[in-house]
Amino acid sequence: MEYKKEVIRFIDDLKNYLPHVSIDCTIFGFHDGQLKVLLLRWKETNDWCLPGGRVYHNENLDAAAHRSLQKRTGLSEIFLQQFHTFGDVIRYKNFSVQETLTKLGLPIEVGMEIISRDVSVGYYALVEFAGVTPTPDFFTEECRWWDIDQIPLLLFDHNDMITLALKTLRRQLSYQPIGYTLLPDKFTMPDLQQLYETILGQTLDRRNFQKRMLGYGILERLEERKIGGAHKAPYLYRFNKEKYEKALSDEILFVG
Amino acid sequence: MEYKKEVIRFIDDLKNYLPHVSIDCTIFGFHDGQLKVLLLRWKETNDWCLPGGRVYHNENLDAAAHRSLQKRTGLSEIFLQQFHTFGDVIRYKNFSVQETLTKLGLPIEVGMEIISRDVSVGYYALVEFAGVTPTPDFFTEECRWWDIDQIPLLLFDHNDMITLALKTLRRQLSYQPIGYTLLPDKFTMPDLQQLYETILGQTLDRRNFQKRMLGYGILERLEERKIGGAHKAPYLYRFNKEKYEKALSDEILFVG
Repeated sequence: MEYKKEVIRFIDDLKNYLPHVSIDCTIFGFHDGQLKVLLLRWKETNDWCLPGGRVYHNENLDAAAHRSLQKRTGLSEIFLQQFHTFGDVIRYKNFSVQETLTKLGLPIEVGMEIISRDVSVGYYALVEFAGVTPTPDFFTEECRWWDIDQIPLLLFDHNDMITLALKTLRRQLSYQPIGYTLLPDKFTMPDLQQLYETILGQTLDRRNFQKRMLGYGILERLEERKIGGAHKAPYLYRFNKEKYEKALSDEILFVG
Repeated sequence: MEYKKEVIRFIDDLKNYLPHVSIDCTIFGFHDGQLKVLLLRWKETNDWCLPGGRVYHNENLDAAAHRSLQKRTGLSEIFLQQFHTFGDVIRYKNFSVQETLTKLGLPIEVGMEIISRDVSVGYYALVEFAGVTPTPDFFTEECRWWDIDQIPLLLFDHNDMITLALKTLRRQLSYQPIGYTLLPDKFTMPDLQQLYETILGQTLDRRNFQKRMLGYGILERLEERKIGGAHKAPYLYRFNKEKYEKALSDEILFVG
């Protein structure tokens, strides 16, 4: 009965949102040398999708994305980047509305909402894995991390969204530093290299990588070394937040 | 009277479009060593803006952008790139609806359309300057090129759009080649360098530029040389279309 009430409240709430516009978020985390994405499982199904949301009539688009992300992750400050708007007429691959409504026991009004044509603005976020409390939303009953190379067939066009989010993240490496929110406060050069290699999906030359990273002037080498490894203890580094943010906005571009 | 009929037709046509979603296009051309943008002037005013349009209910977003662009430029094949969706609640800087309606003699229904909250998907296009026939739309009476560094204060948030389109174009130089649609079929290395320098807004080292460009393997040096200059006649080059397109999709990324 509680669920019925929730459905009524959900439908009643729809008038507060801009019709035909939605947002979807690819939330990247990094843990145990793996790039991961946060996915939601629809109630009573084995169907997964990206977290998303709608935009209030009096709410800026970015604010709506932040609001949705905060609800799904519990994080209040997030590096959030809009990357592409998905606007094909048919965005509902791998998805039978009839079947899903039956499974969920949802009324037709909700079904109409689900199948209405939405132009969806795609965002990606880089979050601190350890700080996230994955939290399902109205339609879903499970929210958890998936390894980037084990993403299942998702609802709607969400596989395409992840593919393009990852492509955009890779491009970003060619003009902006990355890692501030993905790595712990202190990390080694191999940790940083592993992050880059994971995002790029390729191995990098150790010396060139170190040279390039140090050349950006955004890293501070600490006096401490990492202890406990089999090899010679590597130095620990930390991002200089001020210089890191300057590099983000300056963008290290084509230099002829 | 003809105009009144057009207004009635315009209002009647609105129901065929997705509400709350629009598109705006920053069209870049390159001529006489200058990067230029195509702008429209509203009827009976001195107010300029970017070309744009709306999306039919059964039309993909990219198709709508292509349709609008073809109408404004007369070009049928365009390199068109979506770069950002502008979704603030208030996007109408530098703009008094009342004043504009009075000037244009437009009825309030058109005014409501103008001030309705639209999430606008921004595209940019790189077009062949010489091939364009600038053509005004329903709201406007003049369509012409402006030098990028002489853009006036525009309606809505269109100055922000051009700024971000240019920033995105600059980023693009760090992972994709550019020039195929902006330069004539045959060009010299100094022509290509001038294009890059204009987009980046900075001078580049001649030797490094040449080395980098040749390194991409997308240029074919022709037997002909350019004639008529004061200095030694420079070689002419042409893009190898196949290799150029491969480089576009491969994206020359961070290489460690």
